[in-house]
Amino acid sequence: MKRRIFFRRVGIAALISGLFTREAISRSTVKEDCILNKGEIQHMVIFNLSYPEGSEEAGKFLHDGTSILTGIPVVKNFQAFDQVSQKNDYQYGFSMVFSSREDYTSYNNHPDHVAFVRDRWTKEVTAFLEIDFEKVA
Amino acid sequence: MKRRIFFRRVGIAALISGLFTREAISRSTVKEDCILNKGEIQHMVIFNLSYPEGSEEAGKFLHDGTSILTGIPVVKNFQAFDQVSQKNDYQYGFSMVFSSREDYTSYNNHPDHVAFVRDRWTKEVTAFLEIDFEKVA
Repeated sequence: MKRRIFFRRVGIAALISGLFTREAISRSTVKEDCILNKGEIQHMVIFNLSYPEGSEEAGKFLHDGTSILTGIPVVKNFQAFDQVSQKNDYQYGFSMVFSSREDYTSYNNHPDHVAFVRDRWTKEVTAFLEIDFEKVA
Repeated sequence: MKRRIFFRRVGIAALISGLFTREAISRSTVKEDCILNKGEIQHMVIFNLSYPEGSEEAGKFLHDGTSILTGIPVVKNFQAFDQVSQKNDYQYGFSMVFSSREDYTSYNNHPDHVAFVRDRWTKEVTAFLEIDFEKVA
Protein backbone atom coordinates (compact mmCIF):
# COMPACT_ATOMS: atom_id res chain seq x y z
CA MET A 1 0.00 0.00 0.00
CA LYS A 2 2.78 2.35 0.97
CA ARG A 3 4.50 1.35 -2.26
CA ARG A 4 1.41 2.28 -4.30
CA ILE A 5 1.13 5.66 -2.62
CA PHE A 6 4.83 6.20 -3.22
CA PHE A 7 4.48 5.53 -6.93
CA ARG A 8 1.35 7.62 -7.18
CA ARG A 9 3.22 10.50 -5.61
CA VAL A 10 6.19 9.97 -7.86
CA GLY A 11 3.81 9.97 -10.82
CA ILE A 12 2.16 13.21 -9.77
CA ALA A 13 5.51 14.84 -9.08
CA ALA A 14 6.76 13.74 -12.49
CA LEU A 15 3.58 15.02 -14.14
CA ILE A 16 3.83 18.41 -12.47
CA SER A 17 7.50 18.60 -13.31
CA GLY A 18 6.62 17.66 -16.88
CA LEU A 19 4.03 20.41 -17.13
CA PHE A 20 6.36 23.08 -15.80
CA THR A 21 9.17 21.82 -18.00
CA ARG A 22 6.87 21.83 -21.02
CA GLU A 23 5.90 25.44 -20.41
CA ALA A 24 9.44 26.57 -19.71
CA ILE A 25 10.92 24.73 -22.69
CA SER A 26 8.15 25.79 -25.01
CA ARG A 27 8.85 29.43 -24.17
CA SER A 28 12.59 29.10 -24.28
CA THR A 29 12.48 27.05 -27.49
CA VAL A 30 10.51 29.73 -29.29
CA LYS A 31 13.28 32.09 -28.31
CA GLU A 32 16.22 29.82 -28.97
CA ASP A 33 15.12 27.88 -32.04
CA CYS A 34 12.72 30.17 -33.91
CA ILE A 35 14.39 33.44 -33.13
CA LEU A 36 17.84 33.85 -34.60
CA ASN A 37 20.55 33.96 -31.94
CA LYS A 38 23.73 36.00 -32.01
CA GLY A 39 26.22 34.37 -34.38
CA GLU A 40 23.58 32.49 -36.38
CA ILE A 41 22.77 33.44 -39.97
CA GLN A 42 19.46 32.90 -41.74
CA HIS A 43 20.32 32.43 -45.42
CA MET A 44 17.49 32.81 -47.93
CA VAL A 45 17.22 32.87 -51.66
CA ILE A 46 14.13 33.86 -53.62
CA PHE A 47 14.08 32.67 -57.21
CA ASN A 48 12.24 31.83 -60.42
CA LEU A 49 12.35 28.61 -62.40
CA SER A 50 12.22 28.09 -66.16
CA TYR A 51 9.09 25.92 -65.64
CA PRO A 52 5.43 26.91 -65.32
CA GLU A 53 4.24 27.39 -61.74
CA GLY A 54 2.74 24.23 -60.33
CA SER A 55 4.37 22.05 -63.01
CA GLU A 56 5.86 18.66 -62.28
CA GLU A 57 9.35 19.99 -63.15
CA ALA A 58 9.00 22.88 -60.67
CA GLY A 59 7.86 20.44 -57.97
CA LYS A 60 10.79 18.17 -58.74
CA PHE A 61 13.28 21.04 -58.45
CA LEU A 62 11.91 22.08 -55.03
CA HIS A 63 11.87 18.47 -53.86
CA ASP A 64 15.39 17.68 -55.07
CA GLY A 65 16.76 20.98 -53.73
CA THR A 66 15.27 20.24 -50.32
CA SER A 67 16.56 16.69 -50.35
CA ILE A 68 20.10 17.61 -51.46
CA LEU A 69 20.59 20.71 -49.28
CA THR A 70 19.13 19.22 -46.08
CA GLY A 71 21.65 16.40 -46.53
CA ILE A 72 24.46 18.89 -45.83
CA PRO A 73 25.12 18.55 -42.09
CA VAL A 74 25.48 22.27 -41.21
CA VAL A 75 22.07 23.18 -42.71
CA LYS A 76 19.43 23.82 -40.01
CA ASN A 77 15.71 24.66 -40.28
CA PHE A 78 15.62 24.30 -44.06
CA GLN A 79 12.34 25.02 -45.78
CA ALA A 80 11.17 25.50 -49.37
CA PHE A 81 8.48 28.15 -49.89
CA ASP A 82 6.11 29.61 -52.39
CA GLN A 83 6.89 33.34 -52.55
CA VAL A 84 3.40 34.87 -52.64
CA SER A 85 3.90 38.63 -52.29
CA GLN A 86 2.92 40.43 -55.48
CA LYS A 87 5.32 43.23 -54.57
CA ASN A 88 8.31 41.33 -55.94
CA ASP A 89 8.84 39.16 -59.03
CA TYR A 90 10.02 35.91 -57.44
CA GLN A 91 8.00 32.71 -57.18
CA TYR A 92 9.89 30.46 -54.74
CA GLY A 93 12.14 30.63 -51.72
CA PHE A 94 14.60 28.47 -49.82
CA SER A 95 15.50 29.33 -46.23
CA MET A 96 18.04 27.78 -43.90
CA VAL A 97 19.95 28.67 -40.76
CA PHE A 98 23.68 28.30 -40.08
CA SER A 99 25.13 28.31 -36.58
CA SER A 100 28.15 30.36 -37.62
CA ARG A 101 30.11 31.96 -40.49
CA GLU A 102 32.25 28.81 -40.54
CA ASP A 103 29.17 26.64 -41.14
CA TYR A 104 28.03 29.00 -43.92
CA THR A 105 31.43 28.70 -45.62
CA SER A 106 31.43 24.95 -45.16
CA TYR A 107 27.97 24.83 -46.84
CA ASN A 108 29.17 26.95 -49.75
CA ASN A 109 32.15 24.68 -50.30
CA HIS A 110 30.35 21.38 -49.67
CA PRO A 111 30.58 19.12 -52.77
CA ASP A 112 26.79 18.49 -52.72
CA HIS A 113 26.10 22.24 -52.74
CA VAL A 114 28.69 22.87 -55.46
CA ALA A 115 27.20 20.06 -57.58
CA PHE A 116 23.63 21.30 -56.99
CA VAL A 117 24.57 24.82 -58.15
CA ARG A 118 26.47 23.49 -61.17
CA ASP A 119 24.04 20.78 -62.31
CA ARG A 120 20.64 22.21 -61.36
CA TRP A 121 20.64 25.84 -60.18
CA THR A 122 22.51 27.38 -63.12
CA LYS A 123 20.37 25.36 -65.59
CA GLU A 124 16.87 25.67 -64.11
CA VAL A 125 16.84 29.00 -62.21
CA THR A 126 16.20 32.10 -64.33
CA ALA A 127 16.56 34.83 -61.67
CA PHE A 128 17.30 34.99 -57.96
CA LEU A 129 18.07 37.23 -55.00
CA GLU A 130 19.98 36.19 -51.89
CA ILE A 131 19.18 37.58 -48.45
CA ASP A 132 21.08 36.93 -45.21
CA PHE A 133 19.78 37.89 -41.80
CA GLU A 134 21.74 38.28 -38.58
CA LYS A 135 20.41 39.28 -35.18
CA VAL A 136 20.59 43.05 -34.87
CA ALA A 137 23.93 43.90 -33.21
CA MET B 1 15.36 8.90 6.62
CA LYS B 2 12.60 7.22 4.58
CA ARG B 3 11.23 10.65 3.85
CA ARG B 4 14.57 11.79 2.50
CA ILE B 5 14.82 8.74 0.23
CA PHE B 6 11.25 9.36 -0.95
CA PHE B 7 12.03 12.94 -1.92
CA ARG B 8 15.28 11.92 -3.51
CA ARG B 9 13.39 9.37 -5.63
CA VAL B 10 10.70 11.90 -6.50
CA GLY B 11 13.47 14.28 -7.48
CA ILE B 12 15.12 11.74 -9.76
CA ALA B 13 11.77 10.75 -11.32
CA ALA B 14 10.94 14.39 -11.94
CA LEU B 15 14.37 14.99 -13.43
CA ILE B 16 14.08 12.01 -15.78
CA SER B 17 10.56 13.05 -16.76
CA GLY B 18 11.88 16.55 -17.35
CA LEU B 19 14.65 15.32 -19.58
CA PHE B 20 12.34 13.23 -21.73
CA THR B 21 9.82 16.05 -21.95
CA ARG B 22 12.57 18.48 -22.90
CA GLU B 23 13.71 16.26 -25.76
CA ALA B 24 10.19 15.58 -27.04
CA ILE B 25 9.10 19.22 -26.86
CA SER B 26 12.29 20.49 -28.38
CA ARG B 27 11.81 18.22 -31.40
CA SER B 28 8.13 18.94 -31.83
CA THR B 29 8.62 22.68 -31.40
CA VAL B 30 11.24 22.84 -34.10
CA LYS B 31 8.68 21.28 -36.41
CA GLU B 32 5.61 23.18 -35.30
CA ASP B 33 6.92 26.62 -34.43
CA CYS B 34 10.04 27.14 -36.53
CA ILE B 35 8.82 25.54 -39.70
CA LEU B 36 5.97 27.38 -41.37
CA ASN B 37 2.75 25.37 -41.32
CA LYS B 38 0.09 25.26 -44.01
CA GLY B 39 -1.99 28.46 -43.84
CA GLU B 40 0.70 30.50 -42.08
CA ILE B 41 2.51 33.32 -43.84
CA GLN B 42 6.00 34.59 -43.08
CA HIS B 43 6.01 38.27 -43.98
CA MET B 44 9.37 39.96 -44.39
CA VAL B 45 10.57 43.32 -45.52
CA ILE B 46 14.16 44.24 -46.28
CA PHE B 47 14.88 47.96 -46.25
CA ASN B 48 17.28 50.89 -46.01
CA LEU B 49 17.09 53.86 -43.68
CA SER B 50 18.04 57.45 -44.31
CA TYR B 51 20.52 57.22 -41.38
CA PRO B 52 24.11 55.93 -41.31
CA GLU B 53 24.46 52.27 -40.35
CA GLY B 54 24.99 51.83 -36.64
CA SER B 55 23.73 55.34 -35.88
CA GLU B 56 21.53 56.14 -32.90
CA GLU B 57 18.65 57.04 -35.24
CA ALA B 58 18.87 53.69 -37.04
CA GLY B 59 18.88 51.87 -33.72
CA LYS B 60 15.88 53.89 -32.57
CA PHE B 61 13.92 53.04 -35.73
CA LEU B 62 14.57 49.30 -35.31
CA HIS B 63 13.71 49.49 -31.62
CA ASP B 64 10.51 51.48 -32.13
CA GLY B 65 9.44 49.32 -35.08
CA THR B 66 9.90 46.19 -33.00
CA SER B 67 8.07 47.68 -30.07
CA ILE B 68 5.12 49.00 -32.12
CA LEU B 69 4.66 45.99 -34.42
CA THR B 70 5.00 43.33 -31.72
CA GLY B 71 2.21 45.15 -29.89
CA ILE B 72 -0.21 44.12 -32.66
CA PRO B 73 -1.79 40.90 -31.36
CA VAL B 74 -1.70 38.85 -34.62
CA VAL B 75 2.07 39.33 -35.06
CA LYS B 76 4.04 36.18 -34.17
CA ASN B 77 7.81 35.48 -34.11
CA PHE B 78 8.75 39.08 -34.93
CA GLN B 79 12.41 39.85 -35.30
CA ALA B 80 14.50 42.77 -36.57
CA PHE B 81 17.66 41.85 -38.49
CA ASP B 82 20.78 43.22 -40.03
CA GLN B 83 20.72 42.19 -43.70
CA VAL B 84 24.32 41.14 -44.29
CA SER B 85 24.41 39.59 -47.77
CA GLN B 86 26.44 41.73 -50.16
CA LYS B 87 24.42 40.33 -53.06
CA ASN B 88 21.56 42.76 -52.44
CA ASP B 89 21.44 46.45 -51.52
CA TYR B 90 19.37 46.34 -48.32
CA GLN B 91 20.67 46.87 -44.82
CA TYR B 92 17.90 45.74 -42.45
CA GLY B 93 15.03 43.30 -42.23
CA PHE B 94 11.85 42.73 -40.27
CA SER B 95 10.27 39.29 -40.20
CA MET B 96 7.00 38.12 -38.68
CA VAL B 97 4.55 35.24 -39.00
CA PHE B 98 0.77 35.39 -39.37
CA SER B 99 -1.46 32.40 -38.67
CA SER B 100 -3.72 33.17 -41.62
CA ARG B 101 -4.60 35.59 -44.44
CA GLU B 102 -7.18 37.12 -42.08
CA ASP B 103 -4.48 37.88 -39.52
CA TYR B 104 -2.31 39.41 -42.26
CA THR B 105 -5.19 41.68 -43.34
CA SER B 106 -5.95 42.56 -39.74
CA TYR B 107 -2.26 43.55 -39.30
CA ASN B 108 -2.32 45.70 -42.43
CA ASN B 109 -5.44 47.52 -41.23
CA HIS B 110 -4.44 47.78 -37.57
CA PRO B 111 -4.28 51.45 -36.50
CA ASP B 112 -0.80 50.98 -34.97
CA HIS B 113 0.51 49.58 -38.26
CA VAL B 114 -1.18 52.30 -40.30
CA ALA B 115 0.27 54.97 -37.99
CA PHE B 116 3.74 53.40 -38.08
CA VAL B 117 3.74 53.38 -41.89
CA ARG B 118 2.44 56.96 -42.06
CA ASP B 119 4.57 58.52 -39.31
CA ARG B 120 7.81 56.57 -39.51
CA TRP B 121 8.16 54.21 -42.50
CA THR B 122 7.38 56.71 -45.26
CA LYS B 123 9.66 59.30 -43.63
CA GLU B 124 12.68 57.24 -42.59
CA VAL B 125 12.83 54.33 -45.07
CA THR B 126 14.50 55.09 -48.42
CA ALA B 127 13.97 51.75 -50.21
CA PHE B 128 12.40 48.39 -49.40
CA LEU B 129 11.31 45.02 -50.76
CA GLU B 130 8.56 42.85 -49.33
CA ILE B 131 8.73 39.05 -49.36
CA ASP B 132 6.01 36.64 -48.25
CA PHE B 133 6.58 32.93 -47.77
CA GLU B 134 3.98 30.18 -47.62
CA LYS B 135 4.60 26.47 -47.18
CA VAL B 136 4.99 24.89 -50.61
CA ALA B 137 1.55 23.64 -51.69
